[in-house]
Amino acid sequence: MAEFETGFPSVRQIQQWVADKQGVEIKLLTGDILVGTLLWQDPHCLCLTDASGQQIVAWRQAIAYHKAVTA
Amino acid sequence: MAEFETGFPSVRQIQQWVADKQGVEIKLLTGDILVGTLLWQDPHCLCLTDASGQQIVAWRQAIAYHKAVTA
Amino acid sequence: MAEFETGFPSVRQIQQWVADKQGVEIKLLTGDILVGTLLWQDPHCLCLTDASGQQIVAWRQAIAYHKAVTA
Amino acid sequence: MAEFETGFPSVRQIQQWVADKQGVEIKLLTGDILVGTLLWQDPHCLCLTDASGQQIVAWRQAIAYHKAVTA
Amino acid sequence: MAEFETGFPSVRQIQQWVADKQGVEIKLLTGDILVGTLLWQDPHCLCLTDASGQQIVAWRQAIAYHKAVTA
Amino acid sequence: MAEFETGFPSVRQIQQWVADKQGVEIKLLTGDILVGTLLWQDPHCLCLTDASGQQIVAWRQAIAYHKAVTA
Repeated sequence: MAEFETGFPSVRQIQQWVADKQGVEIKLLTGDILVGTLLWQDPHCLCLTDASGQQIVAWRQAIAYHKAVTA
Repeated sequence: MAEFETGFPSVRQIQQWVADKQGVEIKLLTGDILVGTLLWQDPHCLCLTDASGQQIVAWRQAIAYHKAVTA
Repeated sequence: MAEFETGFPSVRQIQQWVADKQGVEIKLLTGDILVGTLLWQDPHCLCLTDASGQQIVAWRQAIAYHKAVTA
Repeated sequence: MAEFETGFPSVRQIQQWVADKQGVEIKLLTGDILVGTLLWQDPHCLCLTDASGQQIVAWRQAIAYHKAVTA
Repeated sequence: MAEFETGFPSVRQIQQWVADKQGVEIKLLTGDILVGTLLWQDPHCLCLTDASGQQIVAWRQAIAYHKAVTA
Repeated sequence: MAEFETGFPSVRQIQQWVADKQGVEIKLLTGDILVGTLLWQDPHCLCLTDASGQQIVAWRQAIAYHKAVTA
């Protein structure tokens, strides 16, 4: 995977969504769809909190796509 | 994945398609097919807008193939 | 995959969970779900002990997501 | 993935096939089989034209195998 | 994938298991489960001998998890 | 993937098998099994010839395991 730089649009957008508590839907290569609000990102993972308050750490390598959703 | 350079044909073609609002179809490793027009790319992702105006961020690592389509 | 640094939130969180004997659930790209407590991590793998005392070494490249569970 | 050098046999062979308009069949990790003639390659992708004249850009990371076919 | 260093716990454990002729079970991303004793490892692969004496070379990139088993 | 060095056991073994025209079976992440004799390897691919004389280029990233077979 390419290196992780905070100037990349995808990294900045996620950082903005963390700040905005934007709802997201993340589709994984397993077919799982995670829905929640983003808490943090790092070069390996994205962490989100789902509707039940459970934190889930999704691994970047396993993400197929993501999009904003109305929380 | 190889480094990301704007001189690579695949990167330049996508950049051109962003400028042209070219319709694209992207097949992902999950089997999902995303259809829309490209908004931006960076070393991790491609962002497209689908027919309903929803933005979807596809991760490069998960792309099997893509092609131009008539929007 | 991005390099492995102990300052990354995901790496630190797992290190904390090793120290706390926190129960975790790890979903792999195969669809397997591993449940246990974390013993160690390194740049390639996470090792956990399941309820029967069996140690299982999960490879980072194959992880889709993980989350804390009540052991 | 390893770096991309024009001296590697696999890269040179594809370059030759581009020059020869050699027909190829590419099997992807999705199970899709693309058939056509190669137009260009770069470190991320191979571009081919199928029998209907449609250009398809296959991503290297998603290729399982390829072989020459009679066009 | 992260670089390969003999000081990593996962690399050292496998090296120890090679020395001990420890039985292992390796689950691959294909769903295949390989069972045998480890012969060698390198940065790309692990080689094991199964019960029939057949040597099988598993590629690290394709490993989901592994664990010790009674041979 | 780790860098490609001719001193690695897996690389040397394949080089020996090329020289010996050793029959091999290669299982890919798609589930495909390729059987033939090895012609060459490079950092991206292995090329083999199957029983019908067809050359097939398998991509390293897609290999789950391989083993020697009686041709």
